[in-house]
Amino acid sequence: MAPTSRITNIPKRGPRSAALVIFGAGGDLTKRLIVPALCHLAQFDKLPSEFAIIGVDRHDQTADQWRDDLAATLFASPSAGIDRQVWARLSARMRYLRGDLTNAETFTRLAKLLAEQWDELKGQNTIFYLAISDQLFGPVVEQLGRAELTRQSNESWRRVVIEKPFGHDLASAQALNAQILKILSEDQIYRIDHFLGKETVQNILVLRFANGIFEPIWNRDHIDHVQITAAETLGVEARGRFYERTGALRDMVPNHLFQLLAMIGMEPPISFDADAVRAKKTELFQAIRPISPKNAVRGQYDAGIVLGRNVVAYRDEPNVDPHSVTETYAAFKLGIDNWRWAGVPFYLRTGKRLSARTTEIAVQFRQAPYALFRDTPVEALPRNILTLRIQPDEGLSISFSAKRPGSEIEIDGVAMDFAYRDYFLPLATVGYETLIHDCLAGDATLFQRADAVETSWRAVQDLLDSWARNPAEDFPNYAAGSAGPDAAEQLLARDGRAWLPISAEHPHTVVRPKVAQRN
Amino acid sequence: MAPTSRITNIPKRGPRSAALVIFGAGGDLTKRLIVPALCHLAQFDKLPSEFAIIGVDRHDQTADQWRDDLAATLFASPSAGIDRQVWARLSARMRYLRGDLTNAETFTRLAKLLAEQWDELKGQNTIFYLAISDQLFGPVVEQLGRAELTRQSNESWRRVVIEKPFGHDLASAQALNAQILKILSEDQIYRIDHFLGKETVQNILVLRFANGIFEPIWNRDHIDHVQITAAETLGVEARGRFYERTGALRDMVPNHLFQLLAMIGMEPPISFDADAVRAKKTELFQAIRPISPKNAVRGQYDAGIVLGRNVVAYRDEPNVDPHSVTETYAAFKLGIDNWRWAGVPFYLRTGKRLSARTTEIAVQFRQAPYALFRDTPVEALPRNILTLRIQPDEGLSISFSAKRPGSEIEIDGVAMDFAYRDYFLPLATVGYETLIHDCLAGDATLFQRADAVETSWRAVQDLLDSWARNPAEDFPNYAAGSAGPDAAEQLLARDGRAWLPISAEHPHTVVRPKVAQRN
Repeated sequence: MAPTSRITNIPKRGPRSAALVIFGAGGDLTKRLIVPALCHLAQFDKLPSEFAIIGVDRHDQTADQWRDDLAATLFASPSAGIDRQVWARLSARMRYLRGDLTNAETFTRLAKLLAEQWDELKGQNTIFYLAISDQLFGPVVEQLGRAELTRQSNESWRRVVIEKPFGHDLASAQALNAQILKILSEDQIYRIDHFLGKETVQNILVLRFANGIFEPIWNRDHIDHVQITAAETLGVEARGRFYERTGALRDMVPNHLFQLLAMIGMEPPISFDADAVRAKKTELFQAIRPISPKNAVRGQYDAGIVLGRNVVAYRDEPNVDPHSVTETYAAFKLGIDNWRWAGVPFYLRTGKRLSARTTEIAVQFRQAPYALFRDTPVEALPRNILTLRIQPDEGLSISFSAKRPGSEIEIDGVAMDFAYRDYFLPLATVGYETLIHDCLAGDATLFQRADAVETSWRAVQDLLDSWARNPAEDFPNYAAGSAGPDAAEQLLARDGRAWLPISAEHPHTVVRPKVAQRN
Repeated sequence: MAPTSRITNIPKRGPRSAALVIFGAGGDLTKRLIVPALCHLAQFDKLPSEFAIIGVDRHDQTADQWRDDLAATLFASPSAGIDRQVWARLSARMRYLRGDLTNAETFTRLAKLLAEQWDELKGQNTIFYLAISDQLFGPVVEQLGRAELTRQSNESWRRVVIEKPFGHDLASAQALNAQILKILSEDQIYRIDHFLGKETVQNILVLRFANGIFEPIWNRDHIDHVQITAAETLGVEARGRFYERTGALRDMVPNHLFQLLAMIGMEPPISFDADAVRAKKTELFQAIRPISPKNAVRGQYDAGIVLGRNVVAYRDEPNVDPHSVTETYAAFKLGIDNWRWAGVPFYLRTGKRLSARTTEIAVQFRQAPYALFRDTPVEALPRNILTLRIQPDEGLSISFSAKRPGSEIEIDGVAMDFAYRDYFLPLATVGYETLIHDCLAGDATLFQRADAVETSWRAVQDLLDSWARNPAEDFPNYAAGSAGPDAAEQLLARDGRAWLPISAEHPHTVVRPKVAQRN
């Protein structure tokens, strides 16, 4: 056998033929993300050879008008790198259907149009992409069911891609699941949570499970605590209206931060198969102890300076109530009650208008026994930290102690680092390309399963309720461009710990314990 | 308390006053290493404020002639960076005594001269430095004893520095220890083995024991095997006569390679104190199973090309027997029979005229379980390797598996690296400076204790005997510039393993298992 750790790349095969129905064909998401992704997939020959697209929306326009509208966005920026020939081929397959999504008649017409397409495609595989307002997710699935468009056969599948947000709390998520699971089986549902690209999910799983050195110390015997940070420098931008009724906790925690939590905390799955991975994710979510309000901190940004630029307070943003009590920052401690993690605190934080844009997971290991150093000038041993960077520069670093040269035993924190970009070329296809390609191929790894969605909401529901009952009185409580509210520092300080700095610069090279200690 | 892991550097204090007697004052070692080291120490104010040097040798010369001779070497190369004012101050303290070291009268005169110096120094601390042929180590110590120069008091110490080699087999080392331990107590004896600078020894100990992430996996549960390599590109150079009766095994293994073995394999000492560290080293040596000849390979270099230059065979080197059966390469497997290491093979190799100059320890961890990757193109998981580089570029690297970007799960070996030079300035004083400074300060960390010397010889004695009884018949058996004899590859291949490449380039970035395997 060849001395190699991999064999030739066998790309995952999508189907020979498929139709894609986009609800919300005139929307921003379709223009900015879905259609460019389809162009890229076409360019790399990753779409089914027989392929048709049906756009559905309220606007009264022809297919040509719709295509022209899409092209205007596609070619507005040359940097998008869309090939005009590819676009010509793809747009030739695009049909447009005008219709009200709350009206059964729209779906009757859709069924008819699809039947024609299926004839041409010689196949009935179909993705229904719900790029629409979340209130319509349930009704559209019901209409699809009534029009008998969701019925699969041995020859063809029907899949529904559901955009975010999936519910706004536990009750609404449960209700939505109940509603759509009356029509669809779980394996037909592709709930998008694209915060973690599949690359990143798989990178983390490979790091943890393809290496013999991490897993033996990946537990409460050797880990002191874990910090998960998703920090943004952006403010609420144009999304004031949406954000006012959402807030940082709902917007980021049960979906995005919990995805990171799952990757770092889950037990080894039996394979990389989507359901094997999702089963372990759900088990982890089930073991999360509901977050207590006393272990949580909320914040709202005031005016300040971010990356050298003056920015306004959240309450002065467009479409935001000048007395808003919506949080733009959330931090909390949670516990995972299983054999691996019992007693290991996980500290999570996310916020807008912080000092840097960075997403990372820092696993802090327990300190080595001090005794050996008792007769040296070393006052305390820094902790080892393994940092998984998700963005802006995906990679891994380990900070550890090395001896400072000299006649005395003195130690300094140093680090070793691995950046994906130093070894690998960036991928040609990312983001929505992957989502659509995976859905065509029936790979649900990147998508959320019903049980995970509900257990995630369950873990934060107490906190959502408590914050709703007790509006914050100290808002705004952190300056834009800072590391967040002081209370977040207190949250860790009372456990004798401290947040790592929020910095886009990596690795955390010099790591000194905050408190000189001898044990 | 300040948030720091170290406090101000408190240099180890040497004594206020001391005398240094150098036996072999006219020798190469004195000129090239000892006196330059003394100059450097003086320059950095690291010598006792009251200091005297007595050179002893056979040559009939005055102190001035001796000093001139030393100065000629000292200032031959400006790169040595010796300060003339420092030399003037230091040389003013130098006395010379002509004498035959086998003659008791020499020691009577030495005692008289020392007594004068002690008066001037107002103290009697004295180092006797045996920079002489190893046959004279025992006799000179006996003469020192007879002249009552080795008797210590509460006010002053007497220490003897003994150069290499300390014995040439177990019996001779035992005999020499017995002889000198009749005169001296163990704590007066400083047996030099400067292969590992103290920096390196301490760097390794700090890495292992100041970090919480290494020690939990530093055992037979997680380590597959360890490789220790000390490869030279040099041939025997001008040392043919010495080397002919020594060979690679004797020259490198029980001292140098075993120092590396001790650092990597020893149990945690209770402190960095010399005796605490040496106790753990000795325990490790005691647990070494005697090396069986069937687990060992010897080699002798043939002509070849090293670093682009044609070089002759060992048998064609000056002062080498054209039919010599002296080995210039030795490789073997050994076992350490204790709770930490039982069942973990240690593969050691050393040789001259190899492809690169490098000294390193590579700890290869066990492979992660394969099951998770069963449905992926991954055929086998590379092993994690933690490499401690000793030279030419001291540092640490960890090779591990990362996912290759793409839609399939494929993995590649990548590495993260730490180099001391990236974080720290090089030390101003190294090598003999440290040895002399430590001896003045009474720090024996860098020196060999009697029990370690004997247990080391004991571990290789069977092999020495076997090789002496059965002269090699296949010499020369490796080309200069190669990785050594083929039989060395076989030694690992029959265990299903392979040596890492001998390369000065680090880290070992792409690590692929030699045999595709599924477990």
